[in-house]
Amino acid sequence: MFQRPGKKNQPPDNILDTLQIPSELRRDLVTGDWIVIARARAKRPHDFTVQREKVAVDVKNDPFINPQASGNYEPVLQYTDAATGEWTLQVIPNKYPAFTSQGQCMVPRNRGPYAVIDGRGFHEVVVFKDPVRDIAHFSRDEATLVLRAFHERLRALSTEDCVQYVSIFQNHGKEAGASLAHPHAQIIALPVVPPDVHGSLRGSRKFYEKNNKTVHATIIGWEREEAKRVIYENKTMIAFCPFTSRTAFEIRIFPKAPQPRFEDVDPRLLSDVADALRASLRMLHDTLDDPAYNFFLHTAPVNHGDYRYYHWHFEILPKTIIWAGFELGTGIEISTIEPEKAAAFLREHLPSDV
Amino acid sequence: MFQRPGKKNQPPDNILDTLQIPSELRRDLVTGDWIVIARARAKRPHDFTVQREKVAVDVKNDPFINPQASGNYEPVLQYTDAATGEWTLQVIPNKYPAFTSQGQCMVPRNRGPYAVIDGRGFHEVVVFKDPVRDIAHFSRDEATLVLRAFHERLRALSTEDCVQYVSIFQNHGKEAGASLAHPHAQIIALPVVPPDVHGSLRGSRKFYEKNNKTVHATIIGWEREEAKRVIYENKTMIAFCPFTSRTAFEIRIFPKAPQPRFEDVDPRLLSDVADALRASLRMLHDTLDDPAYNFFLHTAPVNHGDYRYYHWHFEILPKTIIWAGFELGTGIEISTIEPEKAAAFLREHLPSDV
Repeated sequence: MFQRPGKKNQPPDNILDTLQIPSELRRDLVTGDWIVIARARAKRPHDFTVQREKVAVDVKNDPFINPQASGNYEPVLQYTDAATGEWTLQVIPNKYPAFTSQGQCMVPRNRGPYAVIDGRGFHEVVVFKDPVRDIAHFSRDEATLVLRAFHERLRALSTEDCVQYVSIFQNHGKEAGASLAHPHAQIIALPVVPPDVHGSLRGSRKFYEKNNKTVHATIIGWEREEAKRVIYENKTMIAFCPFTSRTAFEIRIFPKAPQPRFEDVDPRLLSDVADALRASLRMLHDTLDDPAYNFFLHTAPVNHGDYRYYHWHFEILPKTIIWAGFELGTGIEISTIEPEKAAAFLREHLPSDV
Repeated sequence: MFQRPGKKNQPPDNILDTLQIPSELRRDLVTGDWIVIARARAKRPHDFTVQREKVAVDVKNDPFINPQASGNYEPVLQYTDAATGEWTLQVIPNKYPAFTSQGQCMVPRNRGPYAVIDGRGFHEVVVFKDPVRDIAHFSRDEATLVLRAFHERLRALSTEDCVQYVSIFQNHGKEAGASLAHPHAQIIALPVVPPDVHGSLRGSRKFYEKNNKTVHATIIGWEREEAKRVIYENKTMIAFCPFTSRTAFEIRIFPKAPQPRFEDVDPRLLSDVADALRASLRMLHDTLDDPAYNFFLHTAPVNHGDYRYYHWHFEILPKTIIWAGFELGTGIEISTIEPEKAAAFLREHLPSDV
């Protein structure tokens, strides 16, 4: 918890100094939860660079260079290069699925005082072609292909029996939970709406009912007005370090126009999403020296409900801290740099090709 | 996410097998959230042993051998050995506090659409004497001293102006967020009730109002009846792997009699709590080869509210997985072994001296 940035275990020159900088609790507008912004003693992004275990590229044992030759399932979706005929992206069923198509759909069984259901769903891997380069270094076309795959699979899975929610995410780096070095994302279709999404939906609906305006439009409006935390904008998309960042250098990416479901994005606009995502990841890469990170999509459940109070978006969480006893016991996260400062550092690394 | 236990990146002999073992979603009785129990392909506890970075004991640079000589604050609480006059445990203000006594008490300021308050509170470190041994290898007396310190500080901090909740926790091992090798626990007094505690209180109250019985008594009753997940019992305390374990080898420790506040424990019974805690940690140590872990106390807020529907307890979470994109994006945790199996493994290592 609360990693001490900078020199480890050395007190500042005057230890009383730190007691004179109270941290700040900021209340999340969607969930109502408090997060903590610790006023950074650390002055440079360098202080947030986490020493990472280098994983050598091992092409011989890489199961995603030739997925099917390595014993993977046939792809459920594949894009090919028109010129060479070679695949450029594959979506394949995960060989080690957390959810499977077996079992009953939402038939609760009682076990003592508890309810239990089968883990019915889908678990897929989005395999990128290149065994080394990740989205931060993709061209617009390469990154758009990834978004197209997310979009297409989300549409397909949302028509499947028993699917309530589709979670799309990427783990980059071992420290962020990636068990294979070959860049890939994952898609998990669930028979329930997850608690975090449920909480956000509830908070968003309450805000909408009270203010007759979405909470996300309110947040985006204020971010654009203040302009302190915005790191990237294009015609349809905006990326910023949220005022209530859960972790140092957190980034969120929103469409500027309200839209609850990612699957409703006009496919012609996916390149804008791709630009926002790859620009954000490149800035993170260049500012923090290739940190491990997780990103995920938050989008409305796939049922036919009316979610006009909700906006889909991506959240990028670099692995700058370890969740420890305090975070696990309270649910309160501590960001050790003000998002205003983090955004200023990130903006220094805005890539020229987006 | 979803660490593959056992041989990394190797498919099982017949990959179709895994698709025939659906995982199970179990609904938490307190929060109402779903957690996932993946039916373990792993058959031995060995499969959950995480390779840990060995941290050499560096007595010379250990700031807790002689805390004050190393520039730490004077203790707010200290126990001494009657025979030698030497300290056996110190509680000292954290030199790098996440919360301080500066700032205003719960005076919200507006920042655009957001509310902000000062991070007012207390952040203390409970320093154990021995630079190497941790609670798993403490005698009853040594462990009771730790519990006594928690108890005493909780009582003291609960009378402080502006304190709403006191979080007590320990991080063991670098992988669990401990930045110093010298065994120590932490105490953070907060000006708000944390979201996770708030959620549990709400769920517990709802259950109590409906069933006229606490949810914890219901859980403990069923655990004792089934006896599958119980790993330790003494006259007043019980420890078990919860039916809705958030992570592999999770352990919870409850008093058998309902009691909302840890500060209300009869001091003469703290040795029972100590036995349950050190027995649980020893079993974990011996089963998983000294895993990194976090434990924390959940107790009622320190205000004068009526929390008869709540029971204080400890939760121990060994670091067997990394929270990754799926967990961060959904709030759904995946335990890769049935708690019934984990408990059976732990019971094989019940220490003889508790």
